[in-house]
Amino acid sequence: MKTSTQSTSTLRAALKQLIDNKTKPLGALGRLEEIAMQIGLTQGTTHPQLNRPYIVVFAGDHGIAATGLVNPYPQAVTAQMVLNFITGGAAINVFCRQHHLGLAVVDAGVKFDFEPGLFPGKLITRKIGYGTRNYLETEAMTAEEVQQAMEAGKQVVTELYAGGTNCMGFGEMGIGNTSSAALIMSCITGIPVEECVGRGTGVNDEQLLLKKETLRKVYELHLPAIAAQRDAFTLLRCVGGFEIAMMAGAYLRAAELKMIVLVDGFITTAALLVARQLDPSVADNCFFSHASGESGHAAMLEYLGARPLLNLGMRLGEGTGAAMAYPLLQSAIHFLREMASFQSAGVSKAVSDE
Amino acid sequence: MKTSTQSTSTLRAALKQLIDNKTKPLGALGRLEEIAMQIGLTQGTTHPQLNRPYIVVFAGDHGIAATGLVNPYPQAVTAQMVLNFITGGAAINVFCRQHHLGLAVVDAGVKFDFEPGLFPGKLITRKIGYGTRNYLETEAMTAEEVQQAMEAGKQVVTELYAGGTNCMGFGEMGIGNTSSAALIMSCITGIPVEECVGRGTGVNDEQLLLKKETLRKVYELHLPAIAAQRDAFTLLRCVGGFEIAMMAGAYLRAAELKMIVLVDGFITTAALLVARQLDPSVADNCFFSHASGESGHAAMLEYLGARPLLNLGMRLGEGTGAAMAYPLLQSAIHFLREMASFQSAGVSKAVSDE
Repeated sequence: MKTSTQSTSTLRAALKQLIDNKTKPLGALGRLEEIAMQIGLTQGTTHPQLNRPYIVVFAGDHGIAATGLVNPYPQAVTAQMVLNFITGGAAINVFCRQHHLGLAVVDAGVKFDFEPGLFPGKLITRKIGYGTRNYLETEAMTAEEVQQAMEAGKQVVTELYAGGTNCMGFGEMGIGNTSSAALIMSCITGIPVEECVGRGTGVNDEQLLLKKETLRKVYELHLPAIAAQRDAFTLLRCVGGFEIAMMAGAYLRAAELKMIVLVDGFITTAALLVARQLDPSVADNCFFSHASGESGHAAMLEYLGARPLLNLGMRLGEGTGAAMAYPLLQSAIHFLREMASFQSAGVSKAVSDE
Repeated sequence: MKTSTQSTSTLRAALKQLIDNKTKPLGALGRLEEIAMQIGLTQGTTHPQLNRPYIVVFAGDHGIAATGLVNPYPQAVTAQMVLNFITGGAAINVFCRQHHLGLAVVDAGVKFDFEPGLFPGKLITRKIGYGTRNYLETEAMTAEEVQQAMEAGKQVVTELYAGGTNCMGFGEMGIGNTSSAALIMSCITGIPVEECVGRGTGVNDEQLLLKKETLRKVYELHLPAIAAQRDAFTLLRCVGGFEIAMMAGAYLRAAELKMIVLVDGFITTAALLVARQLDPSVADNCFFSHASGESGHAAMLEYLGARPLLNLGMRLGEGTGAAMAYPLLQSAIHFLREMASFQSAGVSKAVSDE
């Protein structure tokens, strides 16, 4: 349902009047006022709400990681961390508990069998495969796998929406996935791949050089196909990941459903870049949680014209930045709904505003 | 009680080991890791806690405000906003409810009789006077008033501490108090007063010029006395405010008690500048919540070598920035206490770390 221009401008004016009549100097809540406005416009109401907020972590393995050329942590860590999410010991568990956020963990394609029966309700199984193929040798995914992954991402969001959720942050786990994100970033923004590559989970100087050399080779191998098609599907097929394709689908569906989305860091923003190729308006309902410590993220945000809410040097993934930024959205909603107006509180306005 | 260098370095090493063994890449939680370290060191433990956190709002009136030369809002707004705090309709009420922070409102010297019996437990009465005197004509406070106010600030903190509080943010309300803060800032940092003056609650260009001219006159009137003494007491006496003096005392007592303090915006940071003249280590237990939208705050933070946690263009005062930053401190404590270690979660470490 597209809101008409007429009613959007009426709603915008009504929201502005509400915000400006709160007992505070004009504009004194800064970005919280912008957030309240954006959520109100997205939800089409002067009384927006955030209901059953969730962090959805998509996990997948990357063929390249088995080579050890781009990652200091062994590939097995992806599955180990999924188990950590399930048992509640990871950073994202801590922050979800703190902010009363639901946590959904999706096996998008981890190279491990989790025996889903063991974790009822804790793991959503949408496994596309046991990790992508090594894109240093061949395409990471087939066209069918890309379609399946994007469709699965849409389904996950549809199901959350059906359960009453209207606000989500996406997170990811996948050893090697900063490499995939850097390649996607380079292909979409035109920034040389070496400038998109960062330290990921923490490669040293020597490893960083090797990571850059390796990804330059990957870039050159796949460039002809990517340049010939210039579309999101080809890009995902050549250098994507299951969890990244799934997130791209998730963003698209969230936009259709006018759900509020918190974008996390480097990899989740790369997935948004992909989704944006398919629907340029996909970022309209998004908030950019934080500026990641991963070096390429700043240029990604600049490319998107996005202003991150937090800048704490975090670079953990898992949706941790999204979880940390959630209370800021909540504050925006709360002030809009709960603060007194000058009139209701009997507070005098500025002389010039009277 | 001063921790010895020996035990501090042992504690620092123990905290670092705890932090580095959490299931995340080294340093991946960025500033949260620094916060956890700082709180641990302040509290002298590897298991720090934030107990019964409070926002304390100190309210006071300023003689200069009655002239209308520096403020677009009438002086009566100070008392009206205190009533708004008491009845729960202000921004700080909203954010305290959101983050389960206690709220203490202190009448440091509002030009209004609140009939304290009417608001049992909602208003702490430490009234030094009915507003300061107009420092365009004479000294704002007497030496006795300065002493009384600082002592009252210390008492408020002592009482919160006795009730189990070990973490606080200070806030303020006082029409005209950005002027006092700008004068204090100029005298302490040596930055010309015109560069310290900002729009406060929102003066327009013409009013800003008048505010600057007025405060230049105030500065020149009191400079001889301030320059002769060069101490915090004289500064407060000449151009301070009841709420600012009270906050200066509060910071000093909080440091003695090793309580964690969240510094809010322009006026609360000015009070810290004053406290720091009396105890240079007073900021060691402080976190700088946010970069205020009030123009002089950035230079104040730079002078202090402080890095604010948030930067959301807020300039409301009341301790709102402190309340918004509180969950970040909480996140630091939670990850330190709750996250699994590599060993406990069975997660492999980076190859280079093994």
